[in-house]
Amino acid sequence: MSEIKIVDLKANVLEDNDKLAEKTRERLNIEHTFLLNLMSAPGSGKTTTLTRLIETLKDEMKIAVMEADIDSDVDAIRIKEAGAESVQLHTGGMCHLDADMTCQGLDSINSKDYDLVVLENVGNLVCPAEFDTGATKNAMILSVPEGDDKPLKYPLMFQVADVVIINKTDVMPYFDFDLVKAKKNILMRHPGIEIIPVCAKTGEGIDKLADWIRKEVRK
Amino acid sequence: MSEIKIVDLKANVLEDNDKLAEKTRERLNIEHTFLLNLMSAPGSGKTTTLTRLIETLKDEMKIAVMEADIDSDVDAIRIKEAGAESVQLHTGGMCHLDADMTCQGLDSINSKDYDLVVLENVGNLVCPAEFDTGATKNAMILSVPEGDDKPLKYPLMFQVADVVIINKTDVMPYFDFDLVKAKKNILMRHPGIEIIPVCAKTGEGIDKLADWIRKEVRK
Repeated sequence: MSEIKIVDLKANVLEDNDKLAEKTRERLNIEHTFLLNLMSAPGSGKTTTLTRLIETLKDEMKIAVMEADIDSDVDAIRIKEAGAESVQLHTGGMCHLDADMTCQGLDSINSKDYDLVVLENVGNLVCPAEFDTGATKNAMILSVPEGDDKPLKYPLMFQVADVVIINKTDVMPYFDFDLVKAKKNILMRHPGIEIIPVCAKTGEGIDKLADWIRKEVRK
Repeated sequence: MSEIKIVDLKANVLEDNDKLAEKTRERLNIEHTFLLNLMSAPGSGKTTTLTRLIETLKDEMKIAVMEADIDSDVDAIRIKEAGAESVQLHTGGMCHLDADMTCQGLDSINSKDYDLVVLENVGNLVCPAEFDTGATKNAMILSVPEGDDKPLKYPLMFQVADVVIINKTDVMPYFDFDLVKAKKNILMRHPGIEIIPVCAKTGEGIDKLADWIRKEVRK
């Protein structure tokens, strides 16, 4: 039997992506631009959290948001109304953003003109966690209705995140969501990670999240 | 310049998958087994809905559930406790199930022994919609906290679904979820599709969903 060469396509794709992601981080460092990659499941409140953050921070820093969506531009419009520059990246059915798509987005907005750029990734707890976008830091939102067991089911997402935002805390009384258990599950996946409970709808906790952003932008 | 041959890997993968999916449906037809592919975002209540369905239907038909999860076996244990056969399919980081993985699952449980097999897909509104699993029918759950705009953002999921279950109707008063608007958005993506509002937590509406299943199983 002849020897068959096995090509691991996925490993190569990820390796190329990692290289470009590193280059992107170097570029952002030179430009003094902080790029936050914001990930979550669909409907966790990414856009509402962002509009709150923009309202809180827009007088202190220049902000732009890159909205990744398979289709539609409903989010980009909401972001613009909140007072930040906004660009819609249509992924054409792709379930995640990679470093190349992120670079295209950064070029299109002239990233060096901004202190903070937020990449609102595709609503998905699986694929976005696998692809380094080149962002300075990763944030993920876990919303109360999704359940406190999500870190058990989507381990990688919690491992790659630098901060976990627990959103929709106002509806905690109506769900079997145990905040202590949620924190324990998150910390099991990622020891020492920052966890910030917020309610984007009422604005509760947004100040603490804004403080985390301020500290990162000043670095 | 020489002509470069372009190989569309994704199209080939999907074509091969479609063939196997068709074969799987023929096999299930011969076995008189109804396979339901259940999809949703993470935390929409797939497992809770399934445990309610099992409690309602277990004395009328033989039921098995194939639980797809990246990691963990928390869902498979809950299903077993509800009274159905249950197998855990670990996807090894994959964000969806394809026809081949589904076949492996069907073989492992001896699908011909069951009237109803439910495939609980990976919690993800993007990738599972692209891959035909070979299921007889597709169901998707949209839960109230995710918002009534999801059909605008994840069009394919609503196009491939044969029935949309709107779950967590008990928390409707605490969210900006407009049932009329949700139905309109769903029907725009998939005219004439069946929409069944339920509350898996309290059991409300599960009878209507059970009726839909009964009708399909008898076909």
